[in-house]
Amino acid sequence: MARIQTEKDVSRKEVILKASAKLFLEKGYKAASMRDLAVKVGVEAASLYNHIRSKAELLHDICFNVANVFFEHINAVEASGATPISKLETLLRFHIQQMIDNYEEVFVSDREWRYLADPYLSNFQNQRRSYRKRFAAIIQSGIEQGQINKIDASTAVLVILHAISGIDSWHRSTHKVSGEELTENIVTILVEGLKK
Amino acid sequence: MARIQTEKDVSRKEVILKASAKLFLEKGYKAASMRDLAVKVGVEAASLYNHIRSKAELLHDICFNVANVFFEHINAVEASGATPISKLETLLRFHIQQMIDNYEEVFVSDREWRYLADPYLSNFQNQRRSYRKRFAAIIQSGIEQGQINKIDASTAVLVILHAISGIDSWHRSTHKVSGEELTENIVTILVEGLKK
Repeated sequence: MARIQTEKDVSRKEVILKASAKLFLEKGYKAASMRDLAVKVGVEAASLYNHIRSKAELLHDICFNVANVFFEHINAVEASGATPISKLETLLRFHIQQMIDNYEEVFVSDREWRYLADPYLSNFQNQRRSYRKRFAAIIQSGIEQGQINKIDASTAVLVILHAISGIDSWHRSTHKVSGEELTENIVTILVEGLKK
Repeated sequence: MARIQTEKDVSRKEVILKASAKLFLEKGYKAASMRDLAVKVGVEAASLYNHIRSKAELLHDICFNVANVFFEHINAVEASGATPISKLETLLRFHIQQMIDNYEEVFVSDREWRYLADPYLSNFQNQRRSYRKRFAAIIQSGIEQGQINKIDASTAVLVILHAISGIDSWHRSTHKVSGEELTENIVTILVEGLKK
């Protein structure tokens, strides 16, 4: 008989998810085993299956949770009455903050989504594409309104998102500026470079 | 008896190196086998060993060849009498050009160097650190001379180098701007963002 899920189960699943994000970051999804995860969580491997079905489910949850967070944010940004340049800055700050605060999950969803199985894989790819298009559309409207330098908007998105992925090295760096300083530096470099 | 190396051997080695860079890019160094490489080059696996000793030697050659190219360039840039901002732009353009023209080698040396064995591994890490420090020193002197916005120079290097690594997606992209347009776009975003 299936057990009824209690609140305790839900929070236990969150602990497992967080640990799996750390593990996939360190070892890569493919190399990571459920045994590694059990060690990280501090339980027997078998008892993990009371809370989750498979390693694939964990990757799936990490990727789609992150996608939801970014989509909810861009929905709100688009709906706001802000100017394109200020929308861009808001998106940028949000990406940086997510890379600082939820580093493991964001990193894993950005690098390891390739290991999703269909239909999740194609669905996730479509969502990525759609997100980038909406990001580019904000830049494009900034160009058309004369606020942003004339550049190819898709290239700008590509440059911006990769620049932010550099926060990965910041996490590992010994020469550590504060999160605030990091954020202001990146915003200065990227937003000022786009401003007309 | 060892064969005497002829010019033909040298160019054959270059063909093998180029093919191995492509292979390591596609499959990753770890997953790539000498058999895969033989298929790519169009010879028997055994005959590869007339030209190279091991898979490790190929990775080693790719990484150190790329390092040499970048070090020769930064030496010349430092020795030039140019202003810091123009040195920075020269470095940036060179990185972009290398990512466009020698994509496979540059990408592999940037991502797969972790699989080098010591003493090459630590040597390569030291070279990377040293290169980034010299890059940061150029930005720092631009800040001190009031040409560049006050930012943390190491963070700027991190952001710039990761932004350029985005050319990786450009290579795979179907929405393709020209190499020239890509270069100008990136220079605009990154150099303008640093200029005071």
